[in-house]
Amino acid sequence: MKSSEKITIMDVAKEAGVSIATVSRIINRSGNVRDATRQKVLSTMEQMGYLPEGDSLTDPGCKTILLSIPEFKNPFISRVIDGVQAAARRRGYYALAMQTAGVYQTFEDYQSMLKNFPCAGVMLISSVRDAEFLDKLSSRCPVVMCSEYCESVGVSFVSIDDIKAAKTAVEYLVSIGRKKIALMNSLLTHKYSRHREAGFREAVLESGLELREDWISHLSSISFDMALSEAMHVLSAPDAPDAYFAISDVYAAAILKAANKLGLLVPQDVSIVGFDNIDISLMTDPALTTMKQPSYQMGYQACEILIDKIENPAAETRQIFFETELIVRGSTM
Amino acid sequence: MKSSEKITIMDVAKEAGVSIATVSRIINRSGNVRDATRQKVLSTMEQMGYLPEGDSLTDPGCKTILLSIPEFKNPFISRVIDGVQAAARRRGYYALAMQTAGVYQTFEDYQSMLKNFPCAGVMLISSVRDAEFLDKLSSRCPVVMCSEYCESVGVSFVSIDDIKAAKTAVEYLVSIGRKKIALMNSLLTHKYSRHREAGFREAVLESGLELREDWISHLSSISFDMALSEAMHVLSAPDAPDAYFAISDVYAAAILKAANKLGLLVPQDVSIVGFDNIDISLMTDPALTTMKQPSYQMGYQACEILIDKIENPAAETRQIFFETELIVRGSTM
Repeated sequence: MKSSEKITIMDVAKEAGVSIATVSRIINRSGNVRDATRQKVLSTMEQMGYLPEGDSLTDPGCKTILLSIPEFKNPFISRVIDGVQAAARRRGYYALAMQTAGVYQTFEDYQSMLKNFPCAGVMLISSVRDAEFLDKLSSRCPVVMCSEYCESVGVSFVSIDDIKAAKTAVEYLVSIGRKKIALMNSLLTHKYSRHREAGFREAVLESGLELREDWISHLSSISFDMALSEAMHVLSAPDAPDAYFAISDVYAAAILKAANKLGLLVPQDVSIVGFDNIDISLMTDPALTTMKQPSYQMGYQACEILIDKIENPAAETRQIFFETELIVRGSTM
Repeated sequence: MKSSEKITIMDVAKEAGVSIATVSRIINRSGNVRDATRQKVLSTMEQMGYLPEGDSLTDPGCKTILLSIPEFKNPFISRVIDGVQAAARRRGYYALAMQTAGVYQTFEDYQSMLKNFPCAGVMLISSVRDAEFLDKLSSRCPVVMCSEYCESVGVSFVSIDDIKAAKTAVEYLVSIGRKKIALMNSLLTHKYSRHREAGFREAVLESGLELREDWISHLSSISFDMALSEAMHVLSAPDAPDAYFAISDVYAAAILKAANKLGLLVPQDVSIVGFDNIDISLMTDPALTTMKQPSYQMGYQACEILIDKIENPAAETRQIFFETELIVRGSTM
């Protein structure tokens, strides 16, 4: 069988034993076609993986939005979803969340998904593998990105300036006298990880401090356990850092726990700055200094933009950056 | 217009200007009907809110499962969803999560939802308002409950013995010499809240301790802030409890924070037992003693049962209780 990219209306007509005009009428939902014929042609299309050129993957008449998310266990994501769902409900839509990271990532994956559940638009909260994927997907259905984005494709997004936020966090650590700053990061497949690391590196170098590659960690998941084990390793070395910038409060909580286990005082021996300002940052003792991002509002705004696009395909592309804010607490003072 | 309960096939035929036989053919997907007629009748049905008696709300041929959840911000729920999604993927299904608590709760709400997104079955992780709702829904589509359940209706579920788990927690607090035990609970609309409170009350009374109603709190959400404020109130009273059983580790973390703020030592002045054994129970200092429930496995198993039911409507009803386990940590010793 040909790949789905190359299958044409002629192939479908031949396979189903009908005329090209009949297939065309079915695709364009015009004219009368006998029900049995329609069913036969539709199932042939499905079997062959045929997708009409430029045909929409979504149905603007339906009231469902697909939220593609990286992982449910990241509390930042939960807050974003809350915002999305509130906006969706206000506009009469249903927002349904599914983890796609590591599972459904190609255009063909989304094509299969959207065949299974009709929806009016897609919000990507997870990272995208490449611009081509995003370009293809956004040409077939309304798409908005939230938190993650891809500047090279003209897709609407709501995000923050991660480079600036990371620089602010690191410059603050420098300002309180820290000289050996480590980074606990996620994998660089995420835009936010790449940008926060870029901001970290810039700030460290601009401050004239040493940039130690062995103090930069990349974890595959927003996992407390992984971060705890990594921080135990880094902080127990003979020449350990005196500060940590963590790209998630979950990581920051793990670094604090590692410091406690190793008998290090926080903030005296190790100062810690987290990211997100989720509840966890208040649960630890001391509470965590963190970069606050307005997660709920970001989700809400992204959903508004997506619904505007669904209801008016001519709606202009919007790219919005929310402000972040450094919140200083016990883990650094 | 009549309520959707009472609209009949005759009403639809009259409204659409077609014969009853035509409507019947469309409902039963039998025989040829002109496409324009079919569309007209289907849209008439929709406008009138007509639902054929006993007709399925779901489509066993599709590969989507709806997860109805109470709130994304509860980390216990995130773990359950992870388990559900893993099982769904293994069986070739998509599991999509939506918050329904406080928003979509009646049978009519679900009817509207399921019109909007075809799915093969529904998993209820949120509580159900009444047995009648569950009875109606489960007669129209495959349903399984997870964590919450309703014994009076023959619907499959996966849960834990919440009464026993709560008794174990309270009896443990009594065994370490605690005499004034408080309860931080959610609203009694949840089965788990009712059962954990029943277990708490039983254990307190059986131990010959005083049952203080002013030491029992009911919060509307798994919210750290709400629990912090409530615990500040209870623990700062002249005659304060010397122990807390919290039905969520999120609440337990808030009680610990309140104790710290009030200058109370944990576990000496106040011993705290949480519930769930989520990551948060390891993030606090001291770490939290907690009742572990196997959240991921519960989600996984519930999803297996649902898919079995989707693929074989004759599959027997299964009601499974997983074991819980008391994990003792620094907040009590």
